[in-house]
Amino acid sequence: MRKSYLMTPGPTPVPPQVLLSQAKPIIHHRTPEYTKIFVEVLEGLQYIFETKNDIILFSSSGTGAMESSVVNLFSAGDKVIVTSNGKFGDRFVQLGETYGLEVIKHEYKWHQVVKPDDIKKSLDENPDVKGVFVTQSETSTGVLNDVKAIGEIVKATNAVLVVDSITGIGAVETKTDEWNLDIVMTGSQKGLMLPPGLAAVSVSEKAWKLAEKSTLPKFYFSWAKAKKALEKKQNPFTPAVSLIVGLRESLKMMREEGLENIIKRHAQLADAVRAGVTAIGLELFAPSEGRGNAVTAVKVPEGVDGKAIPRIMSSKYGVTIAGGQEHLAGKIFRLGHLGYYDKFDITTALSALEMTLQELGYQFEKGVSLKAAEKVLSS
Amino acid sequence: MRKSYLMTPGPTPVPPQVLLSQAKPIIHHRTPEYTKIFVEVLEGLQYIFETKNDIILFSSSGTGAMESSVVNLFSAGDKVIVTSNGKFGDRFVQLGETYGLEVIKHEYKWHQVVKPDDIKKSLDENPDVKGVFVTQSETSTGVLNDVKAIGEIVKATNAVLVVDSITGIGAVETKTDEWNLDIVMTGSQKGLMLPPGLAAVSVSEKAWKLAEKSTLPKFYFSWAKAKKALEKKQNPFTPAVSLIVGLRESLKMMREEGLENIIKRHAQLADAVRAGVTAIGLELFAPSEGRGNAVTAVKVPEGVDGKAIPRIMSSKYGVTIAGGQEHLAGKIFRLGHLGYYDKFDITTALSALEMTLQELGYQFEKGVSLKAAEKVLSS
Repeated sequence: MRKSYLMTPGPTPVPPQVLLSQAKPIIHHRTPEYTKIFVEVLEGLQYIFETKNDIILFSSSGTGAMESSVVNLFSAGDKVIVTSNGKFGDRFVQLGETYGLEVIKHEYKWHQVVKPDDIKKSLDENPDVKGVFVTQSETSTGVLNDVKAIGEIVKATNAVLVVDSITGIGAVETKTDEWNLDIVMTGSQKGLMLPPGLAAVSVSEKAWKLAEKSTLPKFYFSWAKAKKALEKKQNPFTPAVSLIVGLRESLKMMREEGLENIIKRHAQLADAVRAGVTAIGLELFAPSEGRGNAVTAVKVPEGVDGKAIPRIMSSKYGVTIAGGQEHLAGKIFRLGHLGYYDKFDITTALSALEMTLQELGYQFEKGVSLKAAEKVLSS
Repeated sequence: MRKSYLMTPGPTPVPPQVLLSQAKPIIHHRTPEYTKIFVEVLEGLQYIFETKNDIILFSSSGTGAMESSVVNLFSAGDKVIVTSNGKFGDRFVQLGETYGLEVIKHEYKWHQVVKPDDIKKSLDENPDVKGVFVTQSETSTGVLNDVKAIGEIVKATNAVLVVDSITGIGAVETKTDEWNLDIVMTGSQKGLMLPPGLAAVSVSEKAWKLAEKSTLPKFYFSWAKAKKALEKKQNPFTPAVSLIVGLRESLKMMREEGLENIIKRHAQLADAVRAGVTAIGLELFAPSEGRGNAVTAVKVPEGVDGKAIPRIMSSKYGVTIAGGQEHLAGKIFRLGHLGYYDKFDITTALSALEMTLQELGYQFEKGVSLKAAEKVLSS
C-alpha cells in the first residue's frame, strides 16, 4: 500500500467528487441540459475572475489560451511589450515572434519581479504599443508580478493588458475589472481543481475593440466565433463536455468556500511552506517582494544532488513535486500548493522533503520544518 | 425513472469502465507512469489507424486537428484541392481560405459522393497542387467518400492527401498505410468512445517532408513541436491526462474486439438501421454508392414536422438523435451508431422513432422497422 500525493503546480489534485462527476454519462452539447451547465460554469468563472467581462472557454491547454490572445488582438507588425521573468513569460515572446509581432522584450532574471516603472517608461517611449503581456504568477519560479500596478499604468494608454494568470487565478488576488486587466487567462488543471484540457480567457470591452482590427489568421482559437456561439450559450466546436461538467462541480465547491477564503487558505499554505523550508536552512528562490501562493521554489542547498530531490520524493515517498526548468534544472525544486490542498498536505510534503534531504546528506534538525509550518497553520 | 440514450454522431456514449478510469487520481505528465500510458495509447492508435506513421495528439476538438493539417503542411498562396459534400468539407474550405491558401473547390451536393475522377482531372490540370482534402465520412449526412480510390490517384503526384476521418476511424475501413493516406485525423468523442477533448492526427513521411517547407505560423498546433516531444515520449504542452487515461481503456476494449470485428459490427448496425427505416417507408439521404457506418441520415417524410422528430425523441423517450445541419435543418434527421453501440441500441432507437413518428401523424405499420432490423441483426 502506497499513497500518492501530487504536489506540482499543475496538474493539481482533483477532488474525488469532481472526478466522479466526470464519470456521469456523456450528454450532447446542443441540448438544454448542457446549456444549463455551461451558463452555470460561465457565471462561476466570472465570480472567480472577479469580472463582468465575457469569458471564453477553449478545449486546450493554457498555451492555447495564450496563443488566442496573440492571434485575436493583433496583426503582423503590431508593436507589443512582452515582459518575462520565467519560462512562461518567454513563451509569450515566442508566440509574439511566431506571429510576426514587433516584440519589445522586457526580460528580467528569473528571480526578479517585473518592474511596473519599466513598462511605464517603455509605453511613454512607444506610444504606438498595442499590447502589454505580463505573467502574473510564474509557474516556473513562483514569482508574483504586480499586475495591479501594471493595470493602473496600461489603463491610461491605448494598449491592452494581457495577463497570464494560469497559476494565479484561485491562489492570489486577480481583480480583473477593478485592476483593469483586459485579458486574463487560466487553465483547468490549476486553481480550478480540474484535469488538464480546458482553458478560460476573459476579454474586456477595450480588448474586443482592438480584436476587431486584428488580421492575424485564426479559426479554432477565434474569439469572434466563440462570442457568436456565446450569444446562444453554445460553443463554436464540440466542447470537452466531461471537463465542463467537472468544472461546474469544482466551481460549486469554490463558491461554497468563497473566493476570499480560498485566497486566504492559499496564503496560509504558502506561508507555512516558506516557514518550513527556511526553518531547516533552505533558501527561497522568489524575492520577498514577489512571492505567490501557488508554488514555492526552493534553492537546492550546496552539496545536494538537486535532481535527486523530486526523484526520491516520488519514488520512495509517493510525493510528486517539480524540479527546476531550463537553466534552473537541478538548482531549484518546486512544491505546488495550488487548488485542492489543505494544511496537512503541507505537513506531508515537508515531512517527505525532510526524509529525502536526510538521505541526500543534508544536515538539519529533524522535524523543525514541520514545527515551523504547524505554527503558521494553526494560527 | 427515465433512461437516457445518446445516439448522435458525436459525442457518442462512453463505456462505464472508460468513464470510471478517468475518475482515477490525476497523475503528472512528466513521469514514467504517464509515459507508459502515453506509449500504449500511441501504439493503440496506430493499430486502429492501420499505420506505422507518427501519431500526434492534441487537446482540442477535431477542428483543431483539421486546422493543424492546414498550418503545418502549407504556406500562404499554396494551391490545394478541397473537396466538399457537406458541412465538414466546407470547414476545410474555410480553413484553407482563412490561412490564405489558393483553394480549388470541388463542391458537390450534400447527397452526392466526391468523384475520384474529378480529383484526377484537377490534379492533371494543376500539377502544382500541394494537397488534396477529403472528408471520408461526412458527419452531416452519413455520406462516405472513397478515400481508397483517391489515395491511389494522389499517391502518383507530389500532393499529399489529407483525410478527415473524424467519424470514419473505428466505423469504416481506413487503411492509412495501404491506401496512401498521408494525413488521417479523428476526434476522441467518436469511434474511440471517449468524451470530447482529444484529437489524433497521423502524419506520413511524404507529409513530414512537405511540412518542413511550411511557413504558416503555428504554435499550439505545431506538429514539429509535437514530434520533438514525441521523441521523448512526451507532449509539448500539458496534455489532457484524464482523457488519455480513458483512451488507454477504450483502446484496450477495441484491441480485444479486434478492428475487423469492430468494423463488421458497425456495418451490421448501419445495415439494420437502414433496413428498419426503409421498411416503414422512409428514405435514406445518402446515395447507395456512398453510405458509411457511423451515422444514418433519413429524409423527413412529407407532412411531418422534421424539427419535432429529435425534439420528441429526446423529451419523451430519452433518445437524443441529431437533426439536419445548415440547409438540411428540418429536412433530415440523423441516427448515430458510432462507437459504443450494440444490436439493442438499434432496436431502442427504431422503437422510439416509431413512437415519435406515430405521434407526428406519419402512417405506417407499427413494429415493422423493428422486424426488419432484427432480421439483419440476427443474421
